[in-house]
Amino acid sequence: MRKVAIIGVGNSKFGNRGDVTVQELAFEAIREAIEDAGISPKDVELSVVGSAGTRTYELYPAVPINEYAGFYDRGPIRVEAACATGSAAVYTAYVSVACGQVDVAMAVGVEKMCEVDTATSLAVGGRGGNYFWEFHFFGTTFPAYYALYASAHMAKYGTKEEHLAMVAVKAHKYGAMNPKAHFQRPITLEEALGSRVISWPLKLFDCCPISDGSACVILASEDKVRELKGQDTPIWIEAMGFSSDTANMCRRPNYVGLGATIRASKMAYKLAKIGPEDVDVATVHDCFTIAEIMAYEDLGFCKKGESGKLIEEGQTEIGGKIPVNLDGGLNSRSGAVP
Amino acid sequence: MRKVAIIGVGNSKFGNRGDVTVQELAFEAIREAIEDAGISPKDVELSVVGSAGTRTYELYPAVPINEYAGFYDRGPIRVEAACATGSAAVYTAYVSVACGQVDVAMAVGVEKMCEVDTATSLAVGGRGGNYFWEFHFFGTTFPAYYALYASAHMAKYGTKEEHLAMVAVKAHKYGAMNPKAHFQRPITLEEALGSRVISWPLKLFDCCPISDGSACVILASEDKVRELKGQDTPIWIEAMGFSSDTANMCRRPNYVGLGATIRASKMAYKLAKIGPEDVDVATVHDCFTIAEIMAYEDLGFCKKGESGKLIEEGQTEIGGKIPVNLDGGLNSRSGAVP
Repeated sequence: MRKVAIIGVGNSKFGNRGDVTVQELAFEAIREAIEDAGISPKDVELSVVGSAGTRTYELYPAVPINEYAGFYDRGPIRVEAACATGSAAVYTAYVSVACGQVDVAMAVGVEKMCEVDTATSLAVGGRGGNYFWEFHFFGTTFPAYYALYASAHMAKYGTKEEHLAMVAVKAHKYGAMNPKAHFQRPITLEEALGSRVISWPLKLFDCCPISDGSACVILASEDKVRELKGQDTPIWIEAMGFSSDTANMCRRPNYVGLGATIRASKMAYKLAKIGPEDVDVATVHDCFTIAEIMAYEDLGFCKKGESGKLIEEGQTEIGGKIPVNLDGGLNSRSGAVP
Repeated sequence: MRKVAIIGVGNSKFGNRGDVTVQELAFEAIREAIEDAGISPKDVELSVVGSAGTRTYELYPAVPINEYAGFYDRGPIRVEAACATGSAAVYTAYVSVACGQVDVAMAVGVEKMCEVDTATSLAVGGRGGNYFWEFHFFGTTFPAYYALYASAHMAKYGTKEEHLAMVAVKAHKYGAMNPKAHFQRPITLEEALGSRVISWPLKLFDCCPISDGSACVILASEDKVRELKGQDTPIWIEAMGFSSDTANMCRRPNYVGLGATIRASKMAYKLAKIGPEDVDVATVHDCFTIAEIMAYEDLGFCKKGESGKLIEEGQTEIGGKIPVNLDGGLNSRSGAVP
């Protein structure tokens, strides 16, 4: 496998972006990433678009996005993996460079989620779960799925509502420092705990918002990094791991962790020949605060059930043992799909 | 780049498959491919689902498909590339094996297109083109796009309506031999020429049907091919090429060939270190008969403008210089997306 580096990154402003089309929104991130990489758009050999696209009018989003950004001849490939869509786009670009098919690949993730109301958005999201029994029959939407996990984690390990709220407080603290975040206002623990219940024990601040936004990375092979000028800070990708899990809750062994996270991180640790103790900083999926709590444990940053203590001690803040989601995460920076 | 082989293939029966769900339809191909490969489903490390999915009720088709087929923990990645969706799925699986991320990957393509009426299907397909000006303003749907190419090719090179009809006759000849084809009845030249005009010069038999169906391939690395038992006929993939083109007709330089086909085949020929003269058999995208006519030329099987002669001489039939679409193609075996 060839070495692959991230040579450029870009982000749009997140929020309700009714001011732009999906292609304009994607282009905000693309332009920034190309400029950050210091390359010409002509250097990009493959464009991979990550978009779940379930709330927009564009049925083939890669077509207008590549057309608008000038990559119309470099692959109209779009990938979708529900909540993991952005990662799946990076994966596809990564393996394309790693195998030698191309030297420079771009992965751009974009969602316009605010074009439908919240109820519709939750209903659409439910299709990412077990539709027939859980969503249609029992009415389970994603807040309820994660509330199931939160209450199980609380019952088994003594995790408190305060611990969940601390994740939201941390997210908003860092979101306030991120000029592109959807929410840029710090919140207090009391505010988080006192917000209205969405699906107990999850309250409003435990849930990420529904946002529009985009992000882009440019990947290059080792040879290309040497060839291109100004690549003084390439970020080498040591490994990628992936997994998924059954959408049918009845088939999951427990509700205190995510098997997919455990399997994907094991794959990545093994390929990179490192362990969780070697990780300096992490970005995890925090669609609901309990998701971040479980990620600490599933990724091996602490023992199972000890996440409450970890967040309480501030170990996942800057200066702690393992800082997590320093951009504000989904909770403050942007929402999540589905 | 590691060597990659196709070790198993499978297909569903094509046609109006209102008798099955999308996951059941996909499973018909998956089961056949797994059996053909002589492996256990456990050997598959990555499942890539190719589905445009624009005519079905499943918003995240990879979820129910992987769940139903038992691959729920091996990646929920779905790829979409409009008409090239199936190829994009194979590409993603291919680069994953070629780079060393996994040893065995599965690519399954599936569409349920008959769940909406033809007018809706054409309208949805229009979103793969230039929506605002061409589809919305001028009402251009895909038969009209290809009719534009057909009339330009006829005007410039003297290609006749008979040549287009010959492609349909060939397709139905081979479709009649394929027990899984949507149409299994040979047609005559008179029948094709006498069918009703859809968008002149394209008649009913120049247009592929709208079909439901699925196809699956299992790919393996060279080491894995040696390790697995019974792999006496691995099909080695020498190279893959890709490209796309502007969706805006006004920006295309001419209407007698497809730039994407020329660029993609050049990439594949270069990587495989061969030329068009080395190709023994080909499968091309024949959503409309003119697409196959242009593919002969764009892939280099004959000079530009000489496809009429090539089909007239029977050179693209079995026994000819370069047999094309021996499964009946989109014209007789199955329809195309979008």
